[in-house]
Amino acid sequence: MSKNRPHVVIIGGGFGGLYAAKQLAGREVRVTLIDKRNFHLFQPLLYQVATGGLSPGDITSPLRSILKKAKNVQVLAGEVTRIEPRQKLVYLGEQEIQYNYLIVATGVTYHYFGQDGWRPLAPGLKSVEDALEMRRNILHAFEMAEKTGDEAERRAWLTFVVVGAGATGVELAGALGELANKTLSGEFRRIDPKQTRIVLVEGEERVLPPFTRKLSLQAADSLADLGVEIMTQTMVDEIREDGVTLRSLATDKTEELATRTVLWAAGVKVAGLGEHLAEVAEAETDRMGRIMVNADMSVGVFKELFVLGDLAHYAHQTGEPLPGVAQVAMQQGKYVAKLILAQLEGSRLAPFKYNDKGNLAVIGRNSAVAHIGRWEMSGFPAWLIWILVHIHFLIEFDNKILVLVQWAWNYWTRKRGARLITGLDDKE
Amino acid sequence: MSKNRPHVVIIGGGFGGLYAAKQLAGREVRVTLIDKRNFHLFQPLLYQVATGGLSPGDITSPLRSILKKAKNVQVLAGEVTRIEPRQKLVYLGEQEIQYNYLIVATGVTYHYFGQDGWRPLAPGLKSVEDALEMRRNILHAFEMAEKTGDEAERRAWLTFVVVGAGATGVELAGALGELANKTLSGEFRRIDPKQTRIVLVEGEERVLPPFTRKLSLQAADSLADLGVEIMTQTMVDEIREDGVTLRSLATDKTEELATRTVLWAAGVKVAGLGEHLAEVAEAETDRMGRIMVNADMSVGVFKELFVLGDLAHYAHQTGEPLPGVAQVAMQQGKYVAKLILAQLEGSRLAPFKYNDKGNLAVIGRNSAVAHIGRWEMSGFPAWLIWILVHIHFLIEFDNKILVLVQWAWNYWTRKRGARLITGLDDKE
Repeated sequence: MSKNRPHVVIIGGGFGGLYAAKQLAGREVRVTLIDKRNFHLFQPLLYQVATGGLSPGDITSPLRSILKKAKNVQVLAGEVTRIEPRQKLVYLGEQEIQYNYLIVATGVTYHYFGQDGWRPLAPGLKSVEDALEMRRNILHAFEMAEKTGDEAERRAWLTFVVVGAGATGVELAGALGELANKTLSGEFRRIDPKQTRIVLVEGEERVLPPFTRKLSLQAADSLADLGVEIMTQTMVDEIREDGVTLRSLATDKTEELATRTVLWAAGVKVAGLGEHLAEVAEAETDRMGRIMVNADMSVGVFKELFVLGDLAHYAHQTGEPLPGVAQVAMQQGKYVAKLILAQLEGSRLAPFKYNDKGNLAVIGRNSAVAHIGRWEMSGFPAWLIWILVHIHFLIEFDNKILVLVQWAWNYWTRKRGARLITGLDDKE
Repeated sequence: MSKNRPHVVIIGGGFGGLYAAKQLAGREVRVTLIDKRNFHLFQPLLYQVATGGLSPGDITSPLRSILKKAKNVQVLAGEVTRIEPRQKLVYLGEQEIQYNYLIVATGVTYHYFGQDGWRPLAPGLKSVEDALEMRRNILHAFEMAEKTGDEAERRAWLTFVVVGAGATGVELAGALGELANKTLSGEFRRIDPKQTRIVLVEGEERVLPPFTRKLSLQAADSLADLGVEIMTQTMVDEIREDGVTLRSLATDKTEELATRTVLWAAGVKVAGLGEHLAEVAEAETDRMGRIMVNADMSVGVFKELFVLGDLAHYAHQTGEPLPGVAQVAMQQGKYVAKLILAQLEGSRLAPFKYNDKGNLAVIGRNSAVAHIGRWEMSGFPAWLIWILVHIHFLIEFDNKILVLVQWAWNYWTRKRGARLITGLDDKE
């Protein structure tokens, strides 16, 4: 491959970075895709790992494997520590990499409203390790409940608090409901997992705020059927090892809840390399630290530097920033790749335009809500669409037909095969 | 369930403990099965996890799930810290548990010939965490080889040393050969994974010492076909981060080998609770710390205390200790359960007798060695037997039909879907 071809460096192998790389495959450019991980993570299914339904291997694909045939794409595993947009350089450890175009798509991380002490007590759900930590905490709680002789302690172990009722929080709470009421049923001798209390806490007025009021209410009904208690207009004041303090926004009253397991699905913010980039590129950022991008996804005066996906604040289309979902990142990845190719051919491209294909959130077996154009759906039809969409993407990525078999199996048996507590330190 | 029934406490949910529990299911005893983990691990396939072929969830089953219908069996997750054989007590943390019969089957751990500093440099293969550490080290090495610009460093990253050529070492080396030569082929741009050097080091004269000389030689041939270099009559003198020192037992010469990845499949010994038990029961132990048991698997003067599986040294049958394999543990578990039931009915049972069903080791796709009674087999027929035996056990345990589908998929595509580097500390 000619060294003289323009060099496109992509940082981040999530939906945005990967779609950009795929679009550039086989074209007249050299591409280097850098990620700290050696795999692409199918993040929308991470909640299934957290609740023992799927294994991490089921929802990840090695980046090298996906891009095997793209001979002009070089995958490097490692952490970019510094970017110099004026010199067009990125630093991978001590290695200096010169680029002609740079695409940064490193996403966001969880934000604990400035309470960093909450982090170890309430894991978020961004990485495989996060999901395994959640899985460990959840399954450990049932084991502890079975083991203890103290009734109050047992109640606390059987109380789960999910903070944030966006798609992730709703999916987690729903899956927890199925785990407790179906999967674990009959497996314990002292406790009845059906007595598990699952509390879903949301600051807004209703669950799934991005959906319509009607779909929100239908989602709330489905959650209630799975035994999930919903507390809207409620904030978390404190998280301790043995409980949380909740504050009602309506009455300003606080309530103590004894719990040993808090799952975080609330705020996100930009950290690490994204923060560094905003600084060195002197870019404007929003409250969450997301980088304000130009209409073509470039940043400030740097026409060859693009930011996309969750890391980008793109408000040129509607005045509102686009949501942090896979669809947006994928379309932006494709767009930027096309833009670069067009520039190399001396032509131009209209500004990025997001084609909103709809919004989906799954609650449980046969239950979801969907919003596609002007169509609204809930229950089984929405669930069917959810599963078809996910089948489509899983096959597109890595021909992960086996995951479907696993799913079908879980669906019929209500089993969750990956219910293991791992990551313990001892090696005996 | 009546509290007056005799209470059988089983420590360890491996093959020995689990088979004892299954044999006691539904009988007139109360059973408590205690394990640090909430799952049974199908250890013979752990090498597949270490090399990215299967996920941990594929080769584990929650103990509660396996024993769901055994209503007289209570599973407790936790660590037994102390045993008092005279008072017939075990301590689960602060919890005191009284037993009528105690079965201890906590296995062995890796032993680094007294060189504990080697442990972090050369992980063994006993737990899921061990396997994930191996997987991380192996995949990381290929990534580093691709990234470095230094040729000597690249050679070191592409050199893998497996210490010990028993079944585990042979299986690991074979799987590594397939990974490098088949799975990863074409996925890198700078390195050719086929240039990977895999060195299998063994102190004895030949690989797979428990097999006949003929089968050993056939296994060695198959390993050579996969590009594995075999160094027999060779000891490891030192393991450092950047290499190993090997010593030939024939010539007493040492050789330095630059490598970044050492996998340990050599000595084992008893540690932790097993060691404690030997002390408090004043039991005789062998060189590896295994507890010498009576002909009925009981220990010393304690007729109601049994030790089995890898933790036991049983030499009543042939004068030689029985090997530390799943078959022995299973049969001993069943035997002790039957013995207890017989005693409760006032009858007696003949001493334990191991029924050796044969010995199997798999080398790679279509390649294994098998030794069944007077039959010896290698190549495809042995591999077929290997796969049938494992299918049988996987289905017996947890109806893990899906693992077969995964296997068939891996077999035909030569893919290894679970090739992810996890367990990194950062959470960005």
